[in-house]
Amino acid sequence: MERVGFIGLGIMGKPMAQNLLSAGYPLTVHSRSTGPVDEMVAAGATRGASPQHVAGASDVIITMLPDTQDVESVLFGGEGLASGAAAGSLVIDMSTIDPGPARAFAARLAERSVAMVDAPVSGGEKGAIEGTLSIMIGGAEADVARAKPLFDVLGSTIVHVGGDGAGQVCKACNQLVVGATIEAVAEALSLAERSGVDPAKVREALLGGFAGSKILEVHGQRMLDRTYEPGFRARLHAKDAGIVLKAAADSGAPVPSFQVVAAQFAKLVEAGGGELDHSALRTLLDEP
Amino acid sequence: MERVGFIGLGIMGKPMAQNLLSAGYPLTVHSRSTGPVDEMVAAGATRGASPQHVAGASDVIITMLPDTQDVESVLFGGEGLASGAAAGSLVIDMSTIDPGPARAFAARLAERSVAMVDAPVSGGEKGAIEGTLSIMIGGAEADVARAKPLFDVLGSTIVHVGGDGAGQVCKACNQLVVGATIEAVAEALSLAERSGVDPAKVREALLGGFAGSKILEVHGQRMLDRTYEPGFRARLHAKDAGIVLKAAADSGAPVPSFQVVAAQFAKLVEAGGGELDHSALRTLLDEP
Repeated sequence: MERVGFIGLGIMGKPMAQNLLSAGYPLTVHSRSTGPVDEMVAAGATRGASPQHVAGASDVIITMLPDTQDVESVLFGGEGLASGAAAGSLVIDMSTIDPGPARAFAARLAERSVAMVDAPVSGGEKGAIEGTLSIMIGGAEADVARAKPLFDVLGSTIVHVGGDGAGQVCKACNQLVVGATIEAVAEALSLAERSGVDPAKVREALLGGFAGSKILEVHGQRMLDRTYEPGFRARLHAKDAGIVLKAAADSGAPVPSFQVVAAQFAKLVEAGGGELDHSALRTLLDEP
Repeated sequence: MERVGFIGLGIMGKPMAQNLLSAGYPLTVHSRSTGPVDEMVAAGATRGASPQHVAGASDVIITMLPDTQDVESVLFGGEGLASGAAAGSLVIDMSTIDPGPARAFAARLAERSVAMVDAPVSGGEKGAIEGTLSIMIGGAEADVARAKPLFDVLGSTIVHVGGDGAGQVCKACNQLVVGATIEAVAEALSLAERSGVDPAKVREALLGGFAGSKILEVHGQRMLDRTYEPGFRARLHAKDAGIVLKAAADSGAPVPSFQVVAAQFAKLVEAGGGELDHSALRTLLDEP
């Protein structure tokens, strides 16, 4: 059984690491906050003093971090992962970051004979706890096959999308569609309400036809109830919207409707709604 | 069994009228083109010389027409339906029109003791032929109950949304969500492709999660195949987009992302794509 390192024990990372520990993997962990590290050590994991130390003690190292800059500094900063990783080891970055840097990081690690796959997830805290995440993977066939037993512990929908960075591109596409569909459902339910029509009836009528979606079902119901506990926080979707726009600009892909959606997310965060569920885009359409 | 009149034997109207005839309803029909009328008469229907004549021969009159102006002129123009309808008769308008005029038409007919319900549909020609349309209904409870046996012949999802015009508001919401979701899926698959990632893999990865929708499934596949035979014609969605924007303006509902989607539909029609399926919004994102 490969020795696994895990860096980033946040809301997502901690339950993922716990699932790997429960599956029997020898685990070395590191995180900015000591609380989650202490918890994991109490549960049987080994403390890693730095990313470098984690890498030295592991065959496969998973990173689950907030943003591109965090991944870069954990990989290549002082006491970084790259400086401790043995040739032949594998880095699995499950953070959601810009596709461009994801490709660049893989290339830099390859120079040291360290393999990397990008494997961002969707499914939220619930999916992380239950081991039912959707995992979108970019990287070389052999590396993805090597990572597969770990993915099987962490997720239930596992798709190898393409080469380096393809997982991040796929995640960007996912956040584009999810964000735009939330905004569309919000606009429709607001239009119904302002026209004096029961939005619950409209949601019901639309669910069975071509307007039907997971978002209309789940997030549409949140909008009707006006309950915006996350779920997935608006500020994280705002961050991901930035990744979508960056990926679109880098590839020359026009995303005219998502430009508006990204602006709505920024507006929601600015209005203080960043900690609410992303379905709170609906609140921007309420009468003042 | 009520005597039924049917006005407007187009792509949708003709199969709907045929289903009512097959269900045994005595049917009087009228349409601008004589071809479909001749066909229906050969099948056992009675020819109505004018909307007025159809109304005089029927207890319930269904209209299935292209646009708001057509409905107004069939109802209230020379030899119009209103001038021939007996007190106590029922008009069912199944066209997709502006909610405001739909309410006004119902009020004008009520002055003559003629009832009206608005009952636009979705499901396309296929749904019309198979009698599996989704029907979104606005009107008074008793009138909707009276129309119900006819709806059961024509559709499979039948939702009474609210009072006069509520069916049209619901249809506008439907077209908003369908159009915006098509644009979102198009933008995502274009982003994948331009980033060098297989859009088929992205569609597959997204289908199981929160990005999953009927549109991603059906229209996403059309975009991958680049086959844009309708389905639902872009020029009709462009027309419906106008109805959405009108309803939004009338009710004060902000629809920032749909503004962009409506502009894309207009652009597609302008570029000569009006007869293509609405999923051809994807073509606007192709490299020139």
